[in-house]
Amino acid sequence: MTDAPTTAPVARAATAGEVLAGYLTAQAGAFLRALPQAVGEAGSRPGALPASAQAADDLLRAVRRVGGALHTFAAAFDPAWAQESRTELRWLLNLLAQEPGYRRRSTRLLGALDSLADTAPDGAGMLAGHAGAPKARALLERQLTLARTRAHTALLQELRSARLHALADRMTLLAGDVPLVAPAAAEPAEALLPQTGTALGALVATAERLPWQRSAEAYAGAGLHRLGGPVGEPGTVPAARGSAADADAALAADDAPWLRARILVKRARYALEVCGAPGGELLELDRVLGRHQEASDAAATVATAARTPRITPATAYVLGVVHADQRLDVEAARYAFGRQWPAVAPGLVGSAAVVAD
Amino acid sequence: MTDAPTTAPVARAATAGEVLAGYLTAQAGAFLRALPQAVGEAGSRPGALPASAQAADDLLRAVRRVGGALHTFAAAFDPAWAQESRTELRWLLNLLAQEPGYRRRSTRLLGALDSLADTAPDGAGMLAGHAGAPKARALLERQLTLARTRAHTALLQELRSARLHALADRMTLLAGDVPLVAPAAAEPAEALLPQTGTALGALVATAERLPWQRSAEAYAGAGLHRLGGPVGEPGTVPAARGSAADADAALAADDAPWLRARILVKRARYALEVCGAPGGELLELDRVLGRHQEASDAAATVATAARTPRITPATAYVLGVVHADQRLDVEAARYAFGRQWPAVAPGLVGSAAVVAD
Repeated sequence: MTDAPTTAPVARAATAGEVLAGYLTAQAGAFLRALPQAVGEAGSRPGALPASAQAADDLLRAVRRVGGALHTFAAAFDPAWAQESRTELRWLLNLLAQEPGYRRRSTRLLGALDSLADTAPDGAGMLAGHAGAPKARALLERQLTLARTRAHTALLQELRSARLHALADRMTLLAGDVPLVAPAAAEPAEALLPQTGTALGALVATAERLPWQRSAEAYAGAGLHRLGGPVGEPGTVPAARGSAADADAALAADDAPWLRARILVKRARYALEVCGAPGGELLELDRVLGRHQEASDAAATVATAARTPRITPATAYVLGVVHADQRLDVEAARYAFGRQWPAVAPGLVGSAAVVAD
Repeated sequence: MTDAPTTAPVARAATAGEVLAGYLTAQAGAFLRALPQAVGEAGSRPGALPASAQAADDLLRAVRRVGGALHTFAAAFDPAWAQESRTELRWLLNLLAQEPGYRRRSTRLLGALDSLADTAPDGAGMLAGHAGAPKARALLERQLTLARTRAHTALLQELRSARLHALADRMTLLAGDVPLVAPAAAEPAEALLPQTGTALGALVATAERLPWQRSAEAYAGAGLHRLGGPVGEPGTVPAARGSAADADAALAADDAPWLRARILVKRARYALEVCGAPGGELLELDRVLGRHQEASDAAATVATAARTPRITPATAYVLGVVHADQRLDVEAARYAFGRQWPAVAPGLVGSAAVVAD
């Protein structure tokens, strides 16, 4: 990645305001087109997957991009309006992302369990034919269905709320007229580059503090053993308290900087999009960190399920295997990141330096 | 590895018989020196680790080497004598290897559990502070101590047996006079090379049928998921029978060709030793396959422990995590093998072809 593709498309537009307005108008339009269908889907029974499942994805896409642009290029907008908009978009994002998140987690965990318990001669798993496998499967399915139903109910309630209507109105305004701040918006389009550079720089700074070098070594045990904070930040894992929550806290603290890196990858991707620059390598990092997050969340779900009262030892044993298997996938995602990062980082550092110059 | 170092030391000796006699006399001498101390140690209380633990290792070393040479260079010996000797050496090997094997397994499993349950801020494990960890640890320790004590008792009984005295007499004879068969022994030392080539060829043939290419890809899930027979041998995993033993059988069938490869690596190593050729790369493969075997055995021990009646769900859950962690180590060992093999194989194929020419 060099600065050439970053600057070229930006240079074609006259002002920073025009570039931002073009991007945000398009995203707000996508938001408004997807909203009715996505809301229609959410209004149907849980688990239903009509053609408009695509609409929910489109809506999430637009919400993330508008939020990202408002964050990275904050200087060009009215600060109070931008801050409010980001808060409302984040609220909708959390609301919309939950049900599909539980659906994906269900697919992931039940798929992993079925693979581990597979009895096919050429594809058996280490839990092949285990008595606890059907019970553990039923338990996970029940708990995830319950969580999904709750998320669906919460979404339904909010769809009737004044808050969503206000956000839709806000997006309608944005689709027509982006509330830019005159001095910053009037600058030439190149004025967007330092802010894009800041987004890239934030990603590089955070990623470099990840233990990616250790992770780039296969089977170094990073997902199950020797959890710790990012490099140079010892003590992010809470001190031992002798309860089961210790492990949850240690795992959450270990995963947190990776989840943070994913947010920064997305922000950097959207900033490059605004500038019309290619971000293919960031898309790949985003996918890998997405897999990290889903495996991490799925592992936590299994750990919680294993604390369900009155389960049988066989069920608990199977959940232990599935939990470790998900942590193994966390480790595998970190390995993939550790292999990709050294190839991607120099380009990002270069771009960040050039555009922030 | 080329044929040059393989042939050079052999060429210095006059006949095949002299080379074999030199090797076997030295190994039988090592056997006889180590035996009294090793037996003395075995006669002490279980778990005692006097300085003569080294003697038991030395004894095992000699037993393996004599057995390997008698197998690979069988044509040079009286067939009935060689066959009997190998049977008796294998009996002693199994007897001697058990107690140290359980000791290593105990170290491995309790170490893994302690690492998984570690609560140190910079080295916490995914079971940090878990209520089931101390119980699972006590269960594993109790079962492994019991197994070790049984192995020790069995060894003590056999130490008084006429069978061991007969084997010691056999080794005493071997240290003085190796019972060679005249025609084969009288051939020039180069006559040992085709047999060494056969040992290398057997290793190459078996290793090439291992799924090492799949294993060379990190985190492809080979140790936990998608177990199967070696390439071209589907159906080695027994058909599903819907019992917990299914998983044990599937795992055992999946590991079997790797364990077989380890035996052939050792045979090839000892054959090269007889010829005075370097076998450093085989030593490394032997280590990796040794790690595979110990992780595989340890995993099976945990699976058995998890079927102990009346354990708590928390204990069972921890055992599930530890079991998966050991299978992960199986996968890691296969990965290491898959990375080493392509570098080692061409040399072995070349040596096998040259020496068998």
